Amino acid sequence: MSVLHLPEAVRLDDEAGVLIILDQTLLPNETVFLRLREQKEIWEAIYQLRVRGAPAIGIAAAYGSYLGVRESKAATVSELAAEFAPVKAFLASARPTAVNLFWALDRMEACLARLSEMATSSGGSSPEVSVAGAKAALKAEADAIRAEDEDVCRSIGEHSLTLLKKGWGLLTHCNAGSLATARYGTATAPMYLGAERGYGFKVFADETRPLLQGARLTAWELSQAGIDVTVICDNMASIVMKEGRVQAVLVGCDRVAANGDAANKIGTSGVAILARHYGIPFYVHAPLSSVDLKCPTGARIPIEQRKPEEVTERWYARRMAPAGVKVYNPAFDVTDNELITAIVTERGIACPPFSESLAKLAAAASPKRASPAPGRASRARTQSAPRGRPARRQPRSRT
Amino acid sequence: MSVLHLPEAVRLDDEAGVLIILDQTLLPNETVFLRLREQKEIWEAIYQLRVRGAPAIGIAAAYGSYLGVRESKAATVSELAAEFAPVKAFLASARPTAVNLFWALDRMEACLARLSEMATSSGGSSPEVSVAGAKAALKAEADAIRAEDEDVCRSIGEHSLTLLKKGWGLLTHCNAGSLATARYGTATAPMYLGAERGYGFKVFADETRPLLQGARLTAWELSQAGIDVTVICDNMASIVMKEGRVQAVLVGCDRVAANGDAANKIGTSGVAILARHYGIPFYVHAPLSSVDLKCPTGARIPIEQRKPEEVTERWYARRMAPAGVKVYNPAFDVTDNELITAIVTERGIACPPFSESLAKLAAAASPKRASPAPGRASRARTQSAPRGRPARRQPRSRT
Repeated sequence: MSVLHLPEAVRLDDEAGVLIILDQTLLPNETVFLRLREQKEIWEAIYQLRVRGAPAIGIAAAYGSYLGVRESKAATVSELAAEFAPVKAFLASARPTAVNLFWALDRMEACLARLSEMATSSGGSSPEVSVAGAKAALKAEADAIRAEDEDVCRSIGEHSLTLLKKGWGLLTHCNAGSLATARYGTATAPMYLGAERGYGFKVFADETRPLLQGARLTAWELSQAGIDVTVICDNMASIVMKEGRVQAVLVGCDRVAANGDAANKIGTSGVAILARHYGIPFYVHAPLSSVDLKCPTGARIPIEQRKPEEVTERWYARRMAPAGVKVYNPAFDVTDNELITAIVTERGIACPPFSESLAKLAAAASPKRASPAPGRASRARTQSAPRGRPARRQPRSRT
Repeated sequence: MSVLHLPEAVRLDDEAGVLIILDQTLLPNETVFLRLREQKEIWEAIYQLRVRGAPAIGIAAAYGSYLGVRESKAATVSELAAEFAPVKAFLASARPTAVNLFWALDRMEACLARLSEMATSSGGSSPEVSVAGAKAALKAEADAIRAEDEDVCRSIGEHSLTLLKKGWGLLTHCNAGSLATARYGTATAPMYLGAERGYGFKVFADETRPLLQGARLTAWELSQAGIDVTVICDNMASIVMKEGRVQAVLVGCDRVAANGDAANKIGTSGVAILARHYGIPFYVHAPLSSVDLKCPTGARIPIEQRKPEEVTERWYARRMAPAGVKVYNPAFDVTDNELITAIVTERGIACPPFSESLAKLAAAASPKRASPAPGRASRARTQSAPRGRPARRQPRSRT
């Protein structure tokens, strides 16, 4: 099975007027695709984490907001824009901490505002700025958000694959996978591309307590694609490395500071320390949109503390720790730049010193920033990133 | 609450003729003491891991075998010894891999064999070798097994405490606790002694996947004793160390090789690597009985592989990994000696190079090996081990 046949986390069926979402809360036991028509259904899917991963949430919100005005009877683009505002506000309220949700909705709104302005200045005479044209532009904008994410992931995968050799054992943590993105994922992208090219990777997926994204999601999606995957408990990473089963560690990330410190799912920093101890390269996969040059070091990245029940009760048939016991449950940790062998972006591979290499990659990308016009931005080909795309300031976070 | 009031894992009520076992399979949700009278009940408690930890299993088997002949109508000690044989064989079959179970039962049998021999040579005239006397000797032998274990644990705790300072944060893995021993545990012994002396330790208990001994058992028993304990997922050890919350790591062990390599619950080697990275001392707690000088290095210690279902299904309301996915589930790993700051035994603290320090401690202990006579062996006080006990060749393993 090729990655091209991997189930998509989010997809629009424009003919039927429905958003199709793979319900990730039911994985790995059931593969259920929800067909969502109503705004409240889409809101609920985002709120309940049926769709998760910053890019996937952004795509769902973009398509969702388009569906919110698709059947509008507005007579003018301005009226349409007025109807869009409450649709946006409603969807944005589904996950108040998901920055990517706002980013995608803002981008959709800006697209509509531009058209509304054009319509006003042209007196409504241009066919491109008719209400029908504006609806088509909204769909095209959502398609672009989706397509750009796929391109970014694929480019990351191509760059990452140049670091890997056939037959290698790869260890990954959490789910920086296809399920969290339009397709390919970030850390999983080289695994899928490698599978298509006969690399024969053997992947170890940390189960990733407490939310078990590795066991539930990464193992599921890699299995679906026919990739050799083995689930281990987080505390088994040391022994599989010691036994020589792992030649590289591939992880995603939520935010990279200017100096290369990388925040990612809790436990990532521990895996990096083990990799360093055993002399195994540790690669962070990061769209340039998650590189925050305004954040000087990882010490400035706040760490979300989550509920104790996630550790003591969630998933279990019965509670697994004494009642009332203290629990420390940080959602993320920061991996120090000195532990990172390289940071793989869609425009190339940043090597230490990261403060220089990341700035260079970001500077090269900035001028070619995606046009806010509707439709897909043109490819920005460079030597270092044959399938590269302009950087987006799209913040990413996963749960 | 003092350690002296900690619930005991195994206890004999001789008046009632019952073995009292704290059912560890029901922890931490229910604290149920089973009163076991029948041999098949005692067998079942060992088989079902209601009692666990090598020392506790040995103690349960010793008392259990005593109860097995306590009501015997044998007319002679030889008859009693003949009745003891099937009792021993039955209890030994409860956990065929628990070396400590056989060790304790062998010791009980040897005690009885000695008395039987004495009775035969004295023509049955000595009151000490009457059937009643032999029964009393069996009880005393079981009491000695229990008391020696408590003394060993307490001595380990005293030595370990000299390495720690008031107010320290301590991290531990799995359950090398009171529940697995007569009292005190090994890695937990300094925590209990420190608590009694106002050290104000703050303990972090790794939950210890997949069997969750840290969350279910260590957190429970430390809470019972009023010790400040916080449960973390295994993959959170790195962040709590980085945040300066941990000043020492204390773990138990199952087997120490002659060069100091130490086998312990899966994940221990990873914790040791993190401790080394953050400059935190890593202390292994090992009765000399678990130091195997005939085993040159940890590479010779076989690693038990356990069932995939422990990782994917156990404890959960629903399966947590895709059906049929590969799982790697080693029960133990080996921590290289170079990662161990010191090994704390009941006769003193071994520092690197361990091949010398362990041999010295073992040699000092060997000549004073516990007398096989009934009753408690006399204390062997030494400067380095004020509460020390003669070494026993008691193999230890925990699950």
